[in-house]
Amino acid sequence: MSIPSQDSPTAILRVSCPDQAGIVAAVSSFLYENQGNIVDIDQHVDQDEGGFFMRVEWELASFAVARDSLAVALAPIAARFGMEWELHFSDVVPRTALFVTKENHCLYDLLSRHESGELRMEIPLMVSNREDLRGVADRFGIPFRHFPITRETKAAQERNEIELLRAEGIDLVVLARYMQILSPLMTEAFPNRIINIHHSFLPAFPGARPYHSAHRRGVKLVGATSHYVTEELDEGPIIAQGVTPVSHSDSVQDFIRKGRALEQTVLSRAVWLHINRRTLVHANRTIVFG
Amino acid sequence: MSIPSQDSPTAILRVSCPDQAGIVAAVSSFLYENQGNIVDIDQHVDQDEGGFFMRVEWELASFAVARDSLAVALAPIAARFGMEWELHFSDVVPRTALFVTKENHCLYDLLSRHESGELRMEIPLMVSNREDLRGVADRFGIPFRHFPITRETKAAQERNEIELLRAEGIDLVVLARYMQILSPLMTEAFPNRIINIHHSFLPAFPGARPYHSAHRRGVKLVGATSHYVTEELDEGPIIAQGVTPVSHSDSVQDFIRKGRALEQTVLSRAVWLHINRRTLVHANRTIVFG
Amino acid sequence: MSIPSQDSPTAILRVSCPDQAGIVAAVSSFLYENQGNIVDIDQHVDQDEGGFFMRVEWELASFAVARDSLAVALAPIAARFGMEWELHFSDVVPRTALFVTKENHCLYDLLSRHESGELRMEIPLMVSNREDLRGVADRFGIPFRHFPITRETKAAQERNEIELLRAEGIDLVVLARYMQILSPLMTEAFPNRIINIHHSFLPAFPGARPYHSAHRRGVKLVGATSHYVTEELDEGPIIAQGVTPVSHSDSVQDFIRKGRALEQTVLSRAVWLHINRRTLVHANRTIVFG
Amino acid sequence: MSIPSQDSPTAILRVSCPDQAGIVAAVSSFLYENQGNIVDIDQHVDQDEGGFFMRVEWELASFAVARDSLAVALAPIAARFGMEWELHFSDVVPRTALFVTKENHCLYDLLSRHESGELRMEIPLMVSNREDLRGVADRFGIPFRHFPITRETKAAQERNEIELLRAEGIDLVVLARYMQILSPLMTEAFPNRIINIHHSFLPAFPGARPYHSAHRRGVKLVGATSHYVTEELDEGPIIAQGVTPVSHSDSVQDFIRKGRALEQTVLSRAVWLHINRRTLVHANRTIVFG
Repeated sequence: MSIPSQDSPTAILRVSCPDQAGIVAAVSSFLYENQGNIVDIDQHVDQDEGGFFMRVEWELASFAVARDSLAVALAPIAARFGMEWELHFSDVVPRTALFVTKENHCLYDLLSRHESGELRMEIPLMVSNREDLRGVADRFGIPFRHFPITRETKAAQERNEIELLRAEGIDLVVLARYMQILSPLMTEAFPNRIINIHHSFLPAFPGARPYHSAHRRGVKLVGATSHYVTEELDEGPIIAQGVTPVSHSDSVQDFIRKGRALEQTVLSRAVWLHINRRTLVHANRTIVFG
Repeated sequence: MSIPSQDSPTAILRVSCPDQAGIVAAVSSFLYENQGNIVDIDQHVDQDEGGFFMRVEWELASFAVARDSLAVALAPIAARFGMEWELHFSDVVPRTALFVTKENHCLYDLLSRHESGELRMEIPLMVSNREDLRGVADRFGIPFRHFPITRETKAAQERNEIELLRAEGIDLVVLARYMQILSPLMTEAFPNRIINIHHSFLPAFPGARPYHSAHRRGVKLVGATSHYVTEELDEGPIIAQGVTPVSHSDSVQDFIRKGRALEQTVLSRAVWLHINRRTLVHANRTIVFG
Repeated sequence: MSIPSQDSPTAILRVSCPDQAGIVAAVSSFLYENQGNIVDIDQHVDQDEGGFFMRVEWELASFAVARDSLAVALAPIAARFGMEWELHFSDVVPRTALFVTKENHCLYDLLSRHESGELRMEIPLMVSNREDLRGVADRFGIPFRHFPITRETKAAQERNEIELLRAEGIDLVVLARYMQILSPLMTEAFPNRIINIHHSFLPAFPGARPYHSAHRRGVKLVGATSHYVTEELDEGPIIAQGVTPVSHSDSVQDFIRKGRALEQTVLSRAVWLHINRRTLVHANRTIVFG
Repeated sequence: MSIPSQDSPTAILRVSCPDQAGIVAAVSSFLYENQGNIVDIDQHVDQDEGGFFMRVEWELASFAVARDSLAVALAPIAARFGMEWELHFSDVVPRTALFVTKENHCLYDLLSRHESGELRMEIPLMVSNREDLRGVADRFGIPFRHFPITRETKAAQERNEIELLRAEGIDLVVLARYMQILSPLMTEAFPNRIINIHHSFLPAFPGARPYHSAHRRGVKLVGATSHYVTEELDEGPIIAQGVTPVSHSDSVQDFIRKGRALEQTVLSRAVWLHINRRTLVHANRTIVFG
C-alpha cells in the first residue's frame, strides 16, 4: 500500500463473487506484479448469503497496465473466481442530474459541496416538476428543465425525462427532496444510480408526511435515510442514515426544521460515498467501504 | 424559585387540563402565598389537542400547608381549571418490581444505579418466567419469584403475578428484557406504570427479533425504545429512545452486542424520568419534563 | 398558555435577577390581567450563582397593553425584583451581517435557511477580508464589502467595519468561518451579538488548525462549537455544540470534510436560537431556552 | 475469506512495518497456500508517518501450519518487510485485573458483559485503594485485594501491585474509575495494556473533576474517553470516545449522572476492542480495526 500523490489519478475496482479462498491473494499479487501501489483495500464477506465483496484502489501513475488494457488483463482472475466487477478511474467524474421540487436545503448543500470541490462530479442538469427552484439553477448557471406532472402525463413525462437523461449522458440521479414517486420505467432505467433522501428513519414512517406521522407517534428522535431507489417505494438499499433528538415541546414544524439539517447531511454523505465508488449493492443492502 | 436544600423533601404536582389563561398565575401565586419555594416549574401546551400540562416542584421545608391538607388546599384551583392532577413527595419512593427473562444487562444496570443511589426506589421483588437470573437476585438479596408460563397457564399466571404485585404494594413494573407479551389483564391493572425496553427504534421493527429484521433491512443505525406498556404491543407512549451506528460488516450478533449498551442506557433513563415524576402521558404520547 | 395564531406577532421578555420567591407569580399575573396569552414560558435558576432567568413569550393580538407602553407597565415588577430585562417583538427581525473568508459551506447554509424562511432576519451586508466569496454575495443580491487586513491595517479596518455595521443598523454579526481574530474593539462594540463557529469541540483544540491538532491527538470524534465572541479567543459563552465520529483511517482532509456538515449545522442552530431570542448569557455561559 | 465456524478457534496476526508494495499479497498468499481461510483482513497506511498496519484473522481448523510452528513459518515474510508483529489465538483469553475505587457503574457493566459472554476474558483479580467495592467482588466470587495508598506508601504499594499482577499472570489492567494516578513504574510495566476511562471528552478537561470544569465552561455535551495509560496523565492513545447532550438546566450532579452511562459504554467498548485484538498503537494513536 502507498499514499496517493495528491493529483495522481487512481483506478478503483469493485468486485462481487461467491466467497472462496485466494481472492485477496490473487488480486493483490496481480497489482503488485504490475507496480500498482494499493491506496486502499477493503473486503466484506456476507455471512448470510456467502458472497465476497472487495474494493481496491491503486495509483495509475506507476501502474504497468494501460487503462484500456486493464479489462483484458483482469479477465483471467475474474473468470477464475466468477467475479462480477466494475472499474472506475478517479479522474472520470460522474455526470449528475439533480431532481428537486420546492425545498431548497438539500439542493444548496449539494451545490455548495460541489462548488468547494468536495463532491467531484459534473452537474449538467436540474429537473423539476415545478418552477420554484429555477432561480437557484439560474444563479449557479445550471440548465433547469421543468417537467410538470399530472396523473395523466406522468408516464409520458417520465419517458421524456429518461430521454433527456440519456441524451445528457447522466450517470447518477439525485432526488434532492423531489416530491414525485418514480415509476418502474425510471427506476429500471437507472438501477442503483438514483439516490433519494427520505425524511424519516426508515423503515419507520415510509411514504408521505413522515414528520407528521412521527409527531403523532411521539418519537424522541427524528431521522433521515438516503437510499437507492427501487421499484418498491422507500424500500431500496440504505446508504446512510442519521437522527436528531426531538421532544414533546417540538411541533410538527419544529420536526421539519430540525430534520432539514439532517436530510442534507445524510444525502450529501450518500452522494459522496457513491461518487467515490464506495458503495456496493447486494441483496437489497449496501456495503459501504467507509 | 429557589435552590433545594440537599436533603429537603419536595412536593411534585403534575397537572393536565384544557388550555386556558391564568393557570400558571394561579398555581404560582398559591405557592408564593404559602411560602412554597419553587424548585422547578415546566409547562407544555399541546397544539394539536389543546391540552395544558404542568409540573411544579417546590420545597416542603418552609411550606405553610401540611402534606395531608394539600389536596384540600389545591381543590379550588383544580376545580376552577378542570384539572386532573397527581401529587407526589420526593421522600416517598416507588416500590418497583423488575421482570426479567435471560438477558442480564438491563437488570445489572438498574441494580447498579439503584445501589449507587441514582435510582431512588425500593426493589422488593424480581419476577421471571425462567430461572436463569435467580442467581443475580440472590446476590443482591432481592426476593425472586418464578412464574413459568405456557400458553395454557398464561392467564392464570398473570393473575397470580398481579395478586403478588398488589400484595407487595408495587407502584412500578420494569420489564428489563422480559420476553413475554403482557395480556390486557396486566396492562390494565397498571396503566402507565409498566415500562418496557424494546430493542429497536420504534415504530420500526416492532415484535419479535428486531435485530434480525434490522440486519435484513440493512439499516445503518440500530435503536432502542423505552415505553409505557399498553394493550397494543410496542405501541405504547415512548419515554426515551437512542440509536448507535452499525455497518454492513456487523453480523446480527454484532447488532445484538452493540444494542445492549443502548438498551440499558435508554431503559435506565426512562426509569429515572418516571420515578422522578417527570413523565406525563397524554394521547398516547409522553410529555417529558427534562 | 395558548397556541399562537400563525401570523400573530408575539412579545418576548427575557429577564435576569437575583433568585427570589414570587417572580413567576408576578409576571404571569401581570400577563393574565392584561389578556396576554402566554405561548411559551421557561425559567432557570443558577444554583451556583443564585441567579433567576426567565423567558416569556405571549401573543400581542389580544394584549391590553400597547407596545410602546409596555416598558412603563413592566417597570414596577422589574423594580420590585431588581430585574435586568430585554423586550423583543417577533415581527421585528434582526439585521445581520455575515463575515466570511474562503470556506462557503456555513455561508450557503445560512443563506439557504434564510431564503426558505427558517431564519427570520435581514441580511443587508456581507463582509470579508478576501474577495473569494464575492460571487456568492452577488448571486444572492447581498452587498459585499471587502476589508483586506494586514497586521498594520487591522485596527484601522476594524474601525471601518464597526462604522459600517453601525451605519447599517446591524444587530447581529455572524462569523461564518471568518478567519480573522477580532480585536476587543470589535467584541466590545457588539457584546453577545457576535456569533462564531469554531471547528472543534471546545475547550479542546482552541486556536488555529484544530482539525490538524485533533488528528495528531488521535481523537475518535471531531466537534464544532458555536459561541458568542468575547475578548478571550474561543473562550466565549457556548451556544451549541456537535460531534461526528472519525477513525484512524480518516486523514486530516477527511476530518475537514466530515466537520463541514457539523459546522454549518451547529452555526445555523445557534443563529436560530439567537434570533428567536432563546439565548441568555450569564457568567460566561448561555442559558438556552430550547 | 470465509465465515468462521461458530466454535472454531482463529489466529489473529497484527503487523506494523514501513509501508511498501507487496505486503498484502505476501501475507494473503502465505495463508492461501496453507489453507488458512481468512475471516477478516484490514489494513491501514499512516499517511503522515508512512507506516503500514494490518490485522488478519483466519481459521485454525483447516490451517496447515501448527500453532507452535507458526512463528517460524512467518519469519521470512516478517524479515522481508521489516515487520513488528504479534500473534494471538482466539481461544486464549486474556487474564484481566479490574482496578476500582468507589464508583460501581463501570465495574458492574464489565462484570455483566463478562457474565453474559460478551467480554471473553478471565477476571482473577480486583484491586482497590479502598474497601468500598469489596462487596461487589464477593458477590461475583472475585478475589479482592485492598492496597491503601498514601503519598508515603504509593511507590511501595505500586511495587506490591505489580508483583501481584505478575504473580497472577495478568495480561490486561482495566481502570474502572480507579481514582489514583499511576506512576511510571506501573505504566512502564504494562505498556499498552492498561485501559482507563476518563470522564471527559479528552483533550478537554484532563485531570481531576472534569464534570465540574465542564459545567463551569458551559459545554452543551459531556464526554467520556477510554485510552491506554501512559506516563503522561490523560495523554495516552485514545481507544474510544462518546458524548451525551447536556443543558444549562443540568447541575454538576446531573452531568455526573448523565456521564455514567457514557463512561461504562465507552470503557466496555474499549475493553472489547482490546481483548479481540482490534487495537494497534502507533505514534500515541490507536488504529482500531472495527
